Amino acid sequence: MGNRNEVKQRTVEILHKAGLLLTEEEQKNIEIADMGLGHLETEGLQLFTYINTDRYCAKELVLFPRQTCPEHLHPSVHGEPGKQETFRCRWGTVYLYVEGEETASIQGIPPAGKEAVYTAKHEIILTPGQQYTIPPNTKHWFQASDEGAIVSEFSSTSRDEFDVFTDPLVKRLEGINQ
Amino acid sequence: MGNRNEVKQRTVEILHKAGLLLTEEEQKNIEIADMGLGHLETEGLQLFTYINTDRYCAKELVLFPRQTCPEHLHPSVHGEPGKQETFRCRWGTVYLYVEGEETASIQGIPPAGKEAVYTAKHEIILTPGQQYTIPPNTKHWFQASDEGAIVSEFSSTSRDEFDVFTDPLVKRLEGINQ
Repeated sequence: MGNRNEVKQRTVEILHKAGLLLTEEEQKNIEIADMGLGHLETEGLQLFTYINTDRYCAKELVLFPRQTCPEHLHPSVHGEPGKQETFRCRWGTVYLYVEGEETASIQGIPPAGKEAVYTAKHEIILTPGQQYTIPPNTKHWFQASDEGAIVSEFSSTSRDEFDVFTDPLVKRLEGINQ
Repeated sequence: MGNRNEVKQRTVEILHKAGLLLTEEEQKNIEIADMGLGHLETEGLQLFTYINTDRYCAKELVLFPRQTCPEHLHPSVHGEPGKQETFRCRWGTVYLYVEGEETASIQGIPPAGKEAVYTAKHEIILTPGQQYTIPPNTKHWFQASDEGAIVSEFSSTSRDEFDVFTDPLVKRLEGINQ
């Protein structure tokens, strides 16, 4: 995978290809989330947060080819409904899975040996210009196609520390390098 | 200026140039806001709303060369703080003016004869990759450079009907064509 700087550089290049520019300072703040699992290329993602206030949040999510964000949900926090997210594909293709009616044959491939912790099978395929809004408290996971993907995320406030992952091994805030 | 379809087509082309794709259906929903003033090329803007929920909102704002969004503020509504907005420039240059210390010599040019209703003079110049967050209840207006501009707007819920414009002639929801 290379070191942290290489991952950030690769992320910047993918964003740049899609016309999404980050300042030098912003590039340093790219978040590399390996979820404490130690195999970023398979499970994890790269994120850049434009803004996260107590009212709204906007991020870019960058996925390398077939890289997968592990299944999780956003629970209610302090009596407020959980995070609601709109995913808009900017580049590449993203296979998104949410709780609900199972799609017969899905395009995404749960990481080998991890099938038990990827339970959502209702498939939404997003290509550039397509979007989907995930309700609060709804299990979801997503994977890039062989090409990789960029997803713009518009949402209510992000409180990542409260995210509930299906895989008990995940530690969302571990292995984040800024 | 041409007719509504021509304005939408021109808007789509500018977005496309910046790598921002809208589906055919979305293109129809581009909002042409001339604010009821009848001179869109000078005062007004084009908007596309990705999502507007009771928690968050995301839009693209497209400005033709020197096109100007009239001065306004977002007041508290039903006891909730007014809309808070993060403007991120995607393409071109935008001259943004907010209440506060006056900048000595500003780049933006209030529309001729309208100087009295463009009062905010604290200048923020945004080029691609730069952003600024406008607090609630704060007068602001903005103008594109000679090139035009695209601004991504991340915000709390949009309730455009409550916006308070400095110019009493503005009717925000008049002249909107979807």
